[in-house]
Formats: sequence, structure tokens, C-alpha cells
Amino acid sequence: MAEGKPLLRSFVEVPRDSHFPIQNLPFGVFRRRGQPEGPPRPATAIGDFALDLAAVSAAGLFDGPLLSASPCFHQETLNMFLGLGRPAWKEARATLQKILSADEPVLRDNEALRKNCLVPMSDVEMLLPITVGDYTDFFCSVHHARNCGFIFRGPQTPVNPNWFHLPVGYHGRASSVIISGTDIIRPRGQGHPTGSAQPYFGPSQKLDFELEMAAIVGPGNELGKPIDIADAEDHIFGLVVMNDWSARDIQAWETIPLGPFLGKSFSTSVSPWIVTLDALKPFACEAPKQEPEPLPYLAEKNHINYDIPLEAWIKPKEQSEASVVTKTNFKHMYWTVTQQLAHHTVNGCNLRPGDMFATGTLSGPEPDSLGCLLEITWNGQKEISVGNSIRKFLQDGDEVILTGCCKGEDYNVGFGTCTGKILPSLP
Amino acid sequence: MAEGKPLLRSFVEVPRDSHFPIQNLPFGVFRRRGQPEGPPRPATAIGDFALDLAAVSAAGLFDGPLLSASPCFHQETLNMFLGLGRPAWKEARATLQKILSADEPVLRDNEALRKNCLVPMSDVEMLLPITVGDYTDFFCSVHHARNCGFIFRGPQTPVNPNWFHLPVGYHGRASSVIISGTDIIRPRGQGHPTGSAQPYFGPSQKLDFELEMAAIVGPGNELGKPIDIADAEDHIFGLVVMNDWSARDIQAWETIPLGPFLGKSFSTSVSPWIVTLDALKPFACEAPKQEPEPLPYLAEKNHINYDIPLEAWIKPKEQSEASVVTKTNFKHMYWTVTQQLAHHTVNGCNLRPGDMFATGTLSGPEPDSLGCLLEITWNGQKEISVGNSIRKFLQDGDEVILTGCCKGEDYNVGFGTCTGKILPSLP
Ligand SMILES: [Ca+2]
Ligand SMILES: [Ca+2]
Ligand SMILES: [Mg+2]
Ligand SMILES: [Mg+2]
Ligand code: NI
Repeated sequence: MAEGKPLLRSFVEVPRDSHFPIQNLPFGVFRRRGQPEGPPRPATAIGDFALDLAAVSAAGLFDGPLLSASPCFHQETLNMFLGLGRPAWKEARATLQKILSADEPVLRDNEALRKNCLVPMSDVEMLLPITVGDYTDFFCSVHHARNCGFIFRGPQTPVNPNWFHLPVGYHGRASSVIISGTDIIRPRGQGHPTGSAQPYFGPSQKLDFELEMAAIVGPGNELGKPIDIADAEDHIFGLVVMNDWSARDIQAWETIPLGPFLGKSFSTSVSPWIVTLDALKPFACEAPKQEPEPLPYLAEKNHINYDIPLEAWIKPKEQSEASVVTKTNFKHMYWTVTQQLAHHTVNGCNLRPGDMFATGTLSGPEPDSLGCLLEITWNGQKEISVGNSIRKFLQDGDEVILTGCCKGEDYNVGFGTCTGKILPSLP
Repeated sequence: MAEGKPLLRSFVEVPRDSHFPIQNLPFGVFRRRGQPEGPPRPATAIGDFALDLAAVSAAGLFDGPLLSASPCFHQETLNMFLGLGRPAWKEARATLQKILSADEPVLRDNEALRKNCLVPMSDVEMLLPITVGDYTDFFCSVHHARNCGFIFRGPQTPVNPNWFHLPVGYHGRASSVIISGTDIIRPRGQGHPTGSAQPYFGPSQKLDFELEMAAIVGPGNELGKPIDIADAEDHIFGLVVMNDWSARDIQAWETIPLGPFLGKSFSTSVSPWIVTLDALKPFACEAPKQEPEPLPYLAEKNHINYDIPLEAWIKPKEQSEASVVTKTNFKHMYWTVTQQLAHHTVNGCNLRPGDMFATGTLSGPEPDSLGCLLEITWNGQKEISVGNSIRKFLQDGDEVILTGCCKGEDYNVGFGTCTGKILPSLP
């Protein structure tokens, strides 16, 4: 406690290493398991419990001016809440920190209400918390850009000249954004190995993960009205961990001249809890210095990233333990999420609440901080150990577990996990 | 009348050159103009009238087994109707052809009902008829692919080797798909002219149209379950004319290595009436022979296009008349919409009702059948006459009018127009 202010604590017991202390309070959507399943409900996480926000709202505990009459927590997704903007988000956070705090009796001392609102995580199924209108994948780690350029185009011009002038990105597929835990069926498609005369069709032989994070958009903008970079932060609700599953053989053959398509669109997994920028504030850090200086529409006074350590683990089917295959950090990102947002709208493109901006693969500068197998195994030219197995790319039965957690002096602000297991392709 | 079957006629007077005789019956969504505006209503077009399908449904005239109890016409978009599939579409078409026919008294002789259902086109505003979940832009005219390759990469390898093996495509922006008639604000962005040391930021200096059509998806598929090419047609409801507005300077600078992004995402206009495949059936024609033979998952028994003559017109602000700048045809498309759909889902990607598949610019083989100014003016290297003006790219105040119409012996099946006027960029 640098300031001597006592650490805020909840009456809900929160294990010391939990991702979800009262300082985090991320937003998600769950349903109760059982027969029948419960309806989808907005929620926050506290320790090993999910707090049902529809129940909190129905009990009249959201008593602030913006939320007391709002139906935003009686929805099946968070989109309405996201559209309300930061004042409502701050009001929700303040209310939740109050009613969950150790000193506040309203929930702590009301057993019936507690039973109705607080559900053990083991009794819930997490759902995709947003309807994704559009999903954009950026390409904002210079280390990833450099490695991909080298692997695909050779050592002469690893990073394309536009890269240092704008956040390069492309539209991804919104329909196949799925919640963590959903199985991934190995995609089939066309490949065309170098030297081969004809393309072939079959299951991808170079199935990969990409360790990314994604920003979730709050209030959007009208078509034709760009968002100034000074206002960009007000349009970003929070972050999730994302796995941009990639079939490298399909991608390599299809990608010229219009970019990635079926090599990506079979599935994109996101972690269930959206961690707000407000919760991440204590972990803000300077973003990499930009050289050349960005054009004025991309120049920002407050050029920050967040210090979010990230890890990717693989658990082969026949092993009981997962093994870490990379450790990297969100802070390596060259173009910030606010720069991404200002760039995305500068042509007049309209955003809507729930849109997703992915960072691109978050590779760091070190050999053990690369964010995908393409880079780690240099496109399958070398093998890595995963426990007592070896891998060039993902095999059937492999489970990939991505995780991110900001470690503070007194508490963590974590993202939980983003997982997916590879199932064999269709026959 | 080759078969001697009398031509079906409506009691509603349909001008001889109308796009909307009783043989067409496209689907759209309108609202009545006025104070206050009416609510969005599904509709069909007959001559110069829109027929309100909510009113038709409320009157109990959809009396078939699939639609009599369906709320699909009491929605603000067509998505629910699209999701019902071809049996419901055929039932709707049969009902509408019956109640609009000259011999059928139910609507013809009921003045109150007629007044309630049939609205002069001049009294309605057409709306975007679908919620677009995802929009994909293909690249399926070989003439366009060849010309673009030549312009951007030189005469050595104009068409990339993958092009003849798969329908190349990329994800477009769904949020900025807009209805015909919406103004287009000239986008701003980064450009980087060859030879210039630094990129600049400003209004696009190479604003272009692309004459395309788009297929509108009906029933979708579950994630991980590809749609077989033999079933693909059942998932396609109909076609619209589309203008994929393109800022060539922004596109050229941003596009490597991940494809088009802000050079396209500022607006994509569609014509308001979706013409069904059932209405287009009389205009089916053989699609271009494919060499090499497609892989089995893309090989189709019924390899057809539709003979749809298409035109692009430009009306400069200071001129009273529009001038035609190109005449082309949907039938030039190398990869059919059914092949596009089979390819799009072969990796397991899921489609949803209302998804859009654009054809890509529909350039034909002749110099006067090129589908965009990039090709017509060879990237601004030559000028064309537009009435008494000249153009390399679009200027502020220009209105672009795309249209398509199948001309039968006895009637047309047309698409109306897809229009948009260029407004000056933001300061
Ligand atoms: Ca990616
Ligand atoms: Ca296009
Ligand atoms: Mg993906
Ligand atoms: Mg467009
Ligand atoms: Ni301290």
C-alpha cells in the first residue's frame, strides 16, 4: 500500500492467486448448468464465484442514476451495457465493488439474496458474452511481423514499408468467434506445398494457434464520422485473451492477393471474462516509442499499453499435464488499441458495441516469447518438446490453453483461460 | 410463349419496361414516408407499387402450411424469412403470384385491402432489407483479376496461380453495408504514391466504384459442418446489385500483406430488392468452362450462371443526364455462387441467414465491359468522357447508378438501381 490506503477486500473469499479479486470485476455471460439449463445472464467474477447481474439488478442494488432503470443486465449479451459508455461502466463497477466489499452488509448478510446471486463457477457454463457485429484482426507486434515476413518472403524485406506508418489489419469472420472451451474441428482445405505441381485437398497439416488479445468496443460511431484519437479510449470497454486458430497450409495458398480467409475463418476462441480498462489501469505502461513519428491522426498524448504477462500451454491428449510453450506480454504491441481504433474509423467506417479488435499475434523479442508455432518451429523446420512429445504443429487431441494475468503487489487482475481442443477433421 | 401457356399477368398495371412484373416478385423492406414515418415492413415489388407483406399476412392471405402461422413478415428485416428456406420461399412466391394475378379477386376486388397493402413506390423509402452478419467479397471475374494483376504487379504474372483452383475472396466490413441512395462521404486515409518518400494523409484522390452483384444467404450451417456443393443452391435466396466503393490510393498502400481494409470499409451499397433464384431461373445459362478441372469439393453437375446484363452510369453534379460508362454481365463470372458457398464452408465456417457473398467486380472481356474506373482508365492513365466532362476517378457530386435487368421475350426480371452520390470529404 504505497498510499497507506487499506486494500479493498470482499466478503467472498478470494484465493491469493485468483485472477478475480474485487479489484478486477470483469464482465461475462453465464448460464446455470442443470436440467433445464438456466437462461443466459450477465455476470461478474469474484474469486471462484460468478455474480448474477440480472439478480443484482432485480434486487434493486444498481441504484445509481444511469443503471437503476436500465434493462441492460436483463439481456442475453453485454452489447446494451457496452453501448452505454464509460460513465455507466464506472457506475456498475462502483456498485459492484461496494456490494461485494467486506464492510457492506447488503449482500454479505442476506443469505437468500446471496444464494440467488452468487453461483459457484463449477455450476455455470460461460457463454460468448457479446454479439460480434464485426471482428478485425490487426498485426501489431513488430516481432511477429518481422518473423512472418522472413518466413514467407525471405530475409530481404521482412517488414513491409507500410507497417511503421499504420496499424495493418484485415477483417476476420464474425460468425465463427466462439467461447473458450469449444472444441476445434481440424479444418479441411486446399494446400499447395512448394514444388508441387497441383494443389491438394484435405485436413490441414499445419494447424496452429495464435496468442492474441482483443479489445471489445463500447459505444460506436455513425458511418462517416471518424473517432478522434483523443476520444478513442472512451470507445473501448475492455480486453479478452484470444486464440486466432490458423491453418498455415490453407492460409499460405489462398492469401495472395486478398489476405487470409479460410485459413482463419473456421474458429476464433475468446476468453469468457472481459476485463475492463478501468481494472487494468494500475498496470498501464509506456508503449514502444514509435519511429517514424505517426501521422497526426495517429499521434496520441497518452501512448500506453498494459503490462499483461501472457502464456500459451499445450496439453497433448496422452499427457496428464500441460506444458508451457511460450511466455510473452501485451506490452510489446507497437500500435496501441487507441491507435487501432482511430485508424479503423478515419475513413468513416462505423463501429458498433461488441465489435472486436484483435491485436495480432503478440510475439515478443525473445526466442521463448513467440506467439505461434509458425514462429516457434520456424514453419515446421524444427521441433519443440511438449512434455514428453514433440510438435511442429498441433495434433489431434491437443488442448491449447492461453492465459494472461497482471500480477500486482497485492492482487492479480487476470483473464482466466482461453482453451480449445483439436478434434480430428471430418472424413 | 413457346409452350402456348398464356403469360401470367397482374391486375396491377405493370409498364412494359418495368423491372417488376408478376414474374419477378423480389423481396425488400420499406417504410411509408410521412410524419410520422411508418415502421419497417417486408414487401414485394409489382410494377410501380410495393406490396406490404405484413398487411398481406395480417389479412390471412399467406394461407399455405409453412407461412400461415409464421411471424416472418412481421419483422423489420427479411432474416427470419430467409432462414426458413426454399420451400417457404416457393410458398410465398406462389401465394403472391396468385393474389396479384389478374384472375384472382381477393385483392383485386377489395378496395380497402388494396389501399392497405399496395403503396406507390413514390410514397415509400426502401431500407436495408437484411441484417448482414458477415459480408464476403469474392474475386470471380477472370478479366478483373487479370487487369488488376497487370495494373498492380505488371505483365509477367497477371493472375496469381491459386486463382484457377479456388474462388479467391476476403472478408468485408458488415457494418457499412448500406442501402442504395445513401450518400457516400469521400473517405480520408493514407496514400503513398510511387516515388514519394513519405505517405500522406488526406481525402482519397482515387475514389472508384466496383460493379458487383451479391448473393444473399438463406439457411446457414452449423460451425464445423460444411455445405456440400450439391446442396449449395438451397442456401442461396437471391441476388442484389452491389457497389463496392473503393479508394484505390488507400487500398494500394495498406493492402500488403493482409488485403483490402480501409480502402473498402467506408461504404458498400446494395440495391433494395432481392431478386430470388426462382425468378431468375428462366435466365440461367452455362457458366464458363473451367480449366483446370476443379477439385471434387468444387465440381458441380449444374454449373450455371444467370444472364443478367449490367450497366454502370455516372451523373456528374452539373449535368442533367447520366452517361453509361460500362455494360457487362453477371454471366462472365468464372466461379459460380454455389462454388463460392461450397468453398466458403469447406473449412467448417458457419453461414447465417442474411450473409452476403459479393461476386467481385464483374468485368467482361471487352474494353467497354470493365466494371470499375481502375480498369476503365487503367489506374488514371487515361481519361474517359462522361457526358461533357472527363473523369479518371469519381469527383464530388458524381452520382453512380448501377442497374441490372434480365430481358425476356415477354417480360423483364430486373433489379432496379443501386445508387450513391459522392459528398466532399470531412475538412
Ligand atoms: Ca491473427
Ligand atoms: Ca470488390
Ligand atoms: Mg480465427
Ligand atoms: Mg465496400
Ligand atoms: Ni501498496
